[in-house]
Amino acid sequence: MADPSPKPVPLLKDQLDIVIPTIRNLDFLEMWRPFFEQYHLIIVQDGDPNKTIRVPEGFDHELYNRNDINRILGPKANCISFKDSACRCFGYMVSKKKYIYTIDDDCFVAKDPSGKDINALEQHIKNLLSPSTPYFFNTLYDPYREGADFVRGYPFSLREGAPTAVSHGLWLNIPDYDAPTQLVKPRERNTRYVDAVLTIPKGTLFPMCGMNLAFDRELIGPAMYFGLMGDGQPIGRYDDMWAGWCVKVICDHLGLGVKTGLPYIWHSKASNPFVNLKKEYKGIFWQEEIIPFFQSATLPKDCTSVQNCYIELSKQVKEKLGAVDPYFNKLADAMVTWIEAWDELNNSSEESSSKQEPNGAAK
Amino acid sequence: MADPSPKPVPLLKDQLDIVIPTIRNLDFLEMWRPFFEQYHLIIVQDGDPNKTIRVPEGFDHELYNRNDINRILGPKANCISFKDSACRCFGYMVSKKKYIYTIDDDCFVAKDPSGKDINALEQHIKNLLSPSTPYFFNTLYDPYREGADFVRGYPFSLREGAPTAVSHGLWLNIPDYDAPTQLVKPRERNTRYVDAVLTIPKGTLFPMCGMNLAFDRELIGPAMYFGLMGDGQPIGRYDDMWAGWCVKVICDHLGLGVKTGLPYIWHSKASNPFVNLKKEYKGIFWQEEIIPFFQSATLPKDCTSVQNCYIELSKQVKEKLGAVDPYFNKLADAMVTWIEAWDELNNSSEESSSKQEPNGAAK
Repeated sequence: MADPSPKPVPLLKDQLDIVIPTIRNLDFLEMWRPFFEQYHLIIVQDGDPNKTIRVPEGFDHELYNRNDINRILGPKANCISFKDSACRCFGYMVSKKKYIYTIDDDCFVAKDPSGKDINALEQHIKNLLSPSTPYFFNTLYDPYREGADFVRGYPFSLREGAPTAVSHGLWLNIPDYDAPTQLVKPRERNTRYVDAVLTIPKGTLFPMCGMNLAFDRELIGPAMYFGLMGDGQPIGRYDDMWAGWCVKVICDHLGLGVKTGLPYIWHSKASNPFVNLKKEYKGIFWQEEIIPFFQSATLPKDCTSVQNCYIELSKQVKEKLGAVDPYFNKLADAMVTWIEAWDELNNSSEESSSKQEPNGAAK
Repeated sequence: MADPSPKPVPLLKDQLDIVIPTIRNLDFLEMWRPFFEQYHLIIVQDGDPNKTIRVPEGFDHELYNRNDINRILGPKANCISFKDSACRCFGYMVSKKKYIYTIDDDCFVAKDPSGKDINALEQHIKNLLSPSTPYFFNTLYDPYREGADFVRGYPFSLREGAPTAVSHGLWLNIPDYDAPTQLVKPRERNTRYVDAVLTIPKGTLFPMCGMNLAFDRELIGPAMYFGLMGDGQPIGRYDDMWAGWCVKVICDHLGLGVKTGLPYIWHSKASNPFVNLKKEYKGIFWQEEIIPFFQSATLPKDCTSVQNCYIELSKQVKEKLGAVDPYFNKLADAMVTWIEAWDELNNSSEESSSKQEPNGAAK
């Protein structure tokens, strides 16, 4: 007999992992239960590996701490940051699913203007499953949404769009500001709900935030490297930015789309602006050179895989940004290590499954 | 003694003209009275010049019909379209103000989600008076709006922005669809109020609609030519598109910004899709070649004025699009004539005022 009240089957249930970097108990998941409980979670524990992270009952998950990362990657573990949320990209690497959603543990469920809880994951999936429009701007925003379409003057040859690789969601309440802006505007809150999803045009870079982000791992996964940040590094809080610059250049080269806008999450807590300033200040200088570098970066035609593109980009980083600071030579090497590790874990499913022994798996 | 209840002084009252192309009595202005009555209107009467267009009492205006255009421009009048709303650009040319707002006579006052009447003109002025951000995308949209700012990772060197030349407003109710989309979706209405203003990034083209459009005449006026459409021409309904492509290429070259989004107007009536198809169908083919042309168009560094840029663009149109259809040779010539006429009316204020003898001026 069929279950009389089956739970609604969530979209892409078996094709999506939720990656959460954390240093604390994951009580925030209680709020997300209706939306996340049927998905698999990959938790990347940052900081002290001896600390026990409590995961609320009933969430199917695997958890990796630093010891796990070191054991699984061996010497290549040095490409995974420590004491920085950049460690989350390890979760992207060990996932076996097509899609990833990653969220910070200080992000709660937001409400839409009608007061309804926003199912952020569902909106991300809609964004990823519908095409992008990187080649021409549509003034009514995402033409694939219900009630919208391409406007007059939009070339018909471009209306099939491009496959969507990334869905970048936004934040109500605490906006994602840098330390100087936090210091200057300590009380600013984002209260504006903008009911739009749009494609970032080809050739345009954007500041990608990792707080509320989904992507197609098969299309762009190997470029979602969050760099070397935190412990032992001269910089922090540029992990997602680094990934965003690389991802956008590679998406543009490969004809993939990046969307931003809906869904919103409720960002509950501003991080300490003084601590942030210390982490960020080199980035504030460096980004003035990094961004022109990425704006003018071009990839050769024969780079047809994300991996090839990424390795090529690492060479250009070394060549062009190495002069800015020796850090970029180290980062360029880590980019190569990341791809080697990615391929090791992903190219042969037998090999990789024997290497992965996550602890704390609930099922 | 001061007036005990002075009317609020509208923004840029003496620096902005409202340009309205029309073939009918302008009863729609009644609805706009609170927002428009302190501005000067330039009405461009299309069609039969012997018809009398009724303008509601109390609107300060000048009105030009075809006879006026012919008298003022002489042989150069052939660059101004007839029996097509493209004729509106004559109003841009004869204006002596810094800013232009142009609106169609089937556009009514829209309401925001709280039910309040939207002062479209005020929002356009805000858009024009605050900078644009064409060089890097800000994920929280216009960083200069109240409650918003640049997000983490936005280069500080770019936060001054670029001067805004164009503010492109949107439409609730009847969306600006082409004939095929109108035919396929006769009942589609735009009900989504997106509370955002954003800059179209440098290098990205967009379909500019002339229904609800404001611009800085001093910055970009001579590029706001609406082409040869309607009577005697093989095409219609591409007037604003043509202007938008040219304007965007020139703005990108000159470091000027183009914004789109708020404000909304209420577009009351869908035009006849069968009539539209007849006007548009060549454009539907041609835009497939025109858009790549504009996407790859570059202007030489020594083109530092809008006029120089526009003349250079006209040469490229002839050279590259002339092969698509002889129409583009004619259009390229008209682009040159337009600039000649613009300069004649605008370079010497004495000269131009002696040439303009508008009829029907209320004051």
